[in-house]
Amino acid sequence: MALDIRPATAGDVPLILDFIRGLAEYERMLDQVEASEERLRASLFPVDGRAPDAHCVLGSVDGVPAGFALYFFNYSTFLARPGLYLEDLFVKPEFRGAGLGKALLLHLAALAHDRGCGRMEWAVLDWNEPAIGFYEALGATRLLDWQICRLDAQALTKHARA
Amino acid sequence: MALDIRPATAGDVPLILDFIRGLAEYERMLDQVEASEERLRASLFPVDGRAPDAHCVLGSVDGVPAGFALYFFNYSTFLARPGLYLEDLFVKPEFRGAGLGKALLLHLAALAHDRGCGRMEWAVLDWNEPAIGFYEALGATRLLDWQICRLDAQALTKHARA
Repeated sequence: MALDIRPATAGDVPLILDFIRGLAEYERMLDQVEASEERLRASLFPVDGRAPDAHCVLGSVDGVPAGFALYFFNYSTFLARPGLYLEDLFVKPEFRGAGLGKALLLHLAALAHDRGCGRMEWAVLDWNEPAIGFYEALGATRLLDWQICRLDAQALTKHARA
Repeated sequence: MALDIRPATAGDVPLILDFIRGLAEYERMLDQVEASEERLRASLFPVDGRAPDAHCVLGSVDGVPAGFALYFFNYSTFLARPGLYLEDLFVKPEFRGAGLGKALLLHLAALAHDRGCGRMEWAVLDWNEPAIGFYEALGATRLLDWQICRLDAQALTKHARA
């Protein structure tokens, strides 16, 4: 099977939203998806000269769009270097096993290396054993002593008003 | 005690590095700090027209520099909005209890709100009970089912060469 990876363009926004919803469904979080095509377009493909909030690559199998990876650059103070943060990685169920997930991840690892990033990071759900095995086989470590904390939009509004 | 928060400037780089090392020492990770003044200056205060990799605010108590917060903007596909990610928050031990940590965190929560961010996030070490209590008192939730995965620079180089 022929795998191909290319940067997404504004015309791909409906497809990107479809992938985001597919990933959310797999993660049992579909109720948390507030994304719209309009907001994705404004974030990822701004036409007002702003830098995009994040970047996206699309993967295809034999010419058919089959998955995506969405990323941005974070920063490590310990390294004093940027890092690449992989926000989403998703391959549609009917295309799994062709190696596209690995190709997408390695594509971004090479990009991170070329950009002088000190590391590449992402988050995985603790019950997602297939993903954890896949990541560890590629040499990833899990930072099990770190926990992610969050203030949601409601909390931000409350603090901003205080 | 008078608390003040202001954006850092290039002249503050030695102070920022001192705070980074102070935080790393508290986190028992001083051996992982590779940051230098030169690299911090290039990242945070680029003079070549590039956007900075991250942003920094400094906090003082009665006019004395006492702590800092360093952040960047991440992105949520579920919200299709940027978020604010707090990479470092540190107050020197001798200045704790004056409310500067809370003031820094709320300063960034207000900034996140003003910028239209859908959330604010950061990571905490699971043994850091004082910090966890402090964050939860401010309304933060911990995402205990998510684990951070990492490919370090060595792994990136290996994959880039493959």
